[in-house]
Amino acid sequence: MTIRLFITGGTFDKEYDEIHGRLYFKDTHVHEMLRLGRCRVEVAVRTLMLIDSLDMTDADRRLILESCRSAAEERIVITHGTDTLVETARALGEAALPKTIVLTGAMIPWAFGSSDGLFNLGSALSFAQALPHGVYVAMNGQWFPWDDVAKNKSLGVFERLRE
Amino acid sequence: MTIRLFITGGTFDKEYDEIHGRLYFKDTHVHEMLRLGRCRVEVAVRTLMLIDSLDMTDADRRLILESCRSAAEERIVITHGTDTLVETARALGEAALPKTIVLTGAMIPWAFGSSDGLFNLGSALSFAQALPHGVYVAMNGQWFPWDDVAKNKSLGVFERLRE
Amino acid sequence: MTIRLFITGGTFDKEYDEIHGRLYFKDTHVHEMLRLGRCRVEVAVRTLMLIDSLDMTDADRRLILESCRSAAEERIVITHGTDTLVETARALGEAALPKTIVLTGAMIPWAFGSSDGLFNLGSALSFAQALPHGVYVAMNGQWFPWDDVAKNKSLGVFERLRE
Amino acid sequence: MTIRLFITGGTFDKEYDEIHGRLYFKDTHVHEMLRLGRCRVEVAVRTLMLIDSLDMTDADRRLILESCRSAAEERIVITHGTDTLVETARALGEAALPKTIVLTGAMIPWAFGSSDGLFNLGSALSFAQALPHGVYVAMNGQWFPWDDVAKNKSLGVFERLRE
Repeated sequence: MTIRLFITGGTFDKEYDEIHGRLYFKDTHVHEMLRLGRCRVEVAVRTLMLIDSLDMTDADRRLILESCRSAAEERIVITHGTDTLVETARALGEAALPKTIVLTGAMIPWAFGSSDGLFNLGSALSFAQALPHGVYVAMNGQWFPWDDVAKNKSLGVFERLRE
Repeated sequence: MTIRLFITGGTFDKEYDEIHGRLYFKDTHVHEMLRLGRCRVEVAVRTLMLIDSLDMTDADRRLILESCRSAAEERIVITHGTDTLVETARALGEAALPKTIVLTGAMIPWAFGSSDGLFNLGSALSFAQALPHGVYVAMNGQWFPWDDVAKNKSLGVFERLRE
Repeated sequence: MTIRLFITGGTFDKEYDEIHGRLYFKDTHVHEMLRLGRCRVEVAVRTLMLIDSLDMTDADRRLILESCRSAAEERIVITHGTDTLVETARALGEAALPKTIVLTGAMIPWAFGSSDGLFNLGSALSFAQALPHGVYVAMNGQWFPWDDVAKNKSLGVFERLRE
Repeated sequence: MTIRLFITGGTFDKEYDEIHGRLYFKDTHVHEMLRLGRCRVEVAVRTLMLIDSLDMTDADRRLILESCRSAAEERIVITHGTDTLVETARALGEAALPKTIVLTGAMIPWAFGSSDGLFNLGSALSFAQALPHGVYVAMNGQWFPWDDVAKNKSLGVFERLRE
């Protein structure tokens, strides 16, 4: 079984630009993360975009949806900025593809060392293998159905809508 | 839902003793790992032992089994040295408890920075939530039933017995 | 012998704000850095300010100068943002105090892991012990007199004015 | 000015062997450390040996001495295991070469993340530039003349013989 991994950017892949003292995107770190995690799941990586999720447009979301639809793989993980991750999950969830799609992100850039990204990547790849068809958000070691999740922006965590 | 996390030691928790230049156990790092992973799953941690799995005895395995049996939680993750992880999985698997039990480990100590432990911990906690009752090994982003897994000692990875 | 260490901020001490995805100052990391470096030199730390050096005013520089002048210690290290580090060095150099003063900084925040800060801190503390009275910039393992140094802003390194 | 850097091994360069769970030597990390430290001093690196300093023989020490004697550079840094670092310093000190030679080491392997090695390397390279001819030990941010230093083995630090 191969898992398809779509990269869209987000905090996951932010770098520190030491000349200008700013955060920016250069390239995805996901290959290095899979290597450090000693991942042996077959993962086919494709970078769709490398953007801050606040800049994500409807056209970007259509591209993500079409990429999921046309992927040969039945199990898909998507890395995504957390600010609009739930919005993209909804766009995918409403399409009701016969696939297991798991969106994940990070609060701390991988390049900054003590990242939650490696933990979330391990978690998302595992949920993608074990959950039935559907669209899910995997963050903080938890999974949420696409229609029962929101980002608590003041705490920086994801929560169920209904308790 | 609370996940019970039993610590038994293994590479996961090895430290570097800078006075003697040796590896040793002091305390589990799992709390720090859960914090860095921004884990929001309720996890109840208990250290059963902190040993190299080559030193694990039948009595130790009985203690692990009894701890799983008497735990209030239905979902359990066990950190374990990789050398005899499969043997402990078998002891638990044969007991056929009505629980989901996931054993995991690490090839590189957490204290040494670029660890696979954080990835495996995220993975194991996720499989523990999503897999049906049974005993599993979660390593390298993969999961294995307890009776279909072996450690490939020359490569340092886990593999299915049957292809 | 005690070395006086004045903190003024700069990249050295920048943090990542995971709620807003921005860099900011919270507290100095210099105590942790001295601990990790197993530093056994007696160092008396005082935080004068925690600012981006682009925001440093003439009044700030006067405060730094007066703090150097009134310090009981003859040997002083100052952590500083690199953008205007040379300007502060000049203000101190022109005062010609009978002290050895070494300014240093970092291109990568300590909080982001693979930092040049620890290297520069070890270097600056050493130059402060070994160089005669004067004001110096210690960066990239090198030392420069205050009147013979400039930051090459496109490369992010410090260079002599005269070759 | 070029600084000659001789590598002899020691904790500095120890690796973790994930197959056998042991510490071992593979290659020096000093190039990576100089890169992370953004070092701009010209450093000419040569690996003389990669051994635990407890295994260092008189013949090894003669090789180090002859390498220092025949080096074109006047300023030399030597990385060395801490257990017998003082003994090698004495062998070099008694030879009274017209050079500045600084020996340094680490208590924690660089490969294990939170190392004192980067701090010590920055410190040793700086003392090598600023101190007069002689043989010195640079550890813990301090420098010691070769005939006034001992390792306190219970604390893992270096101290003067005379207070």
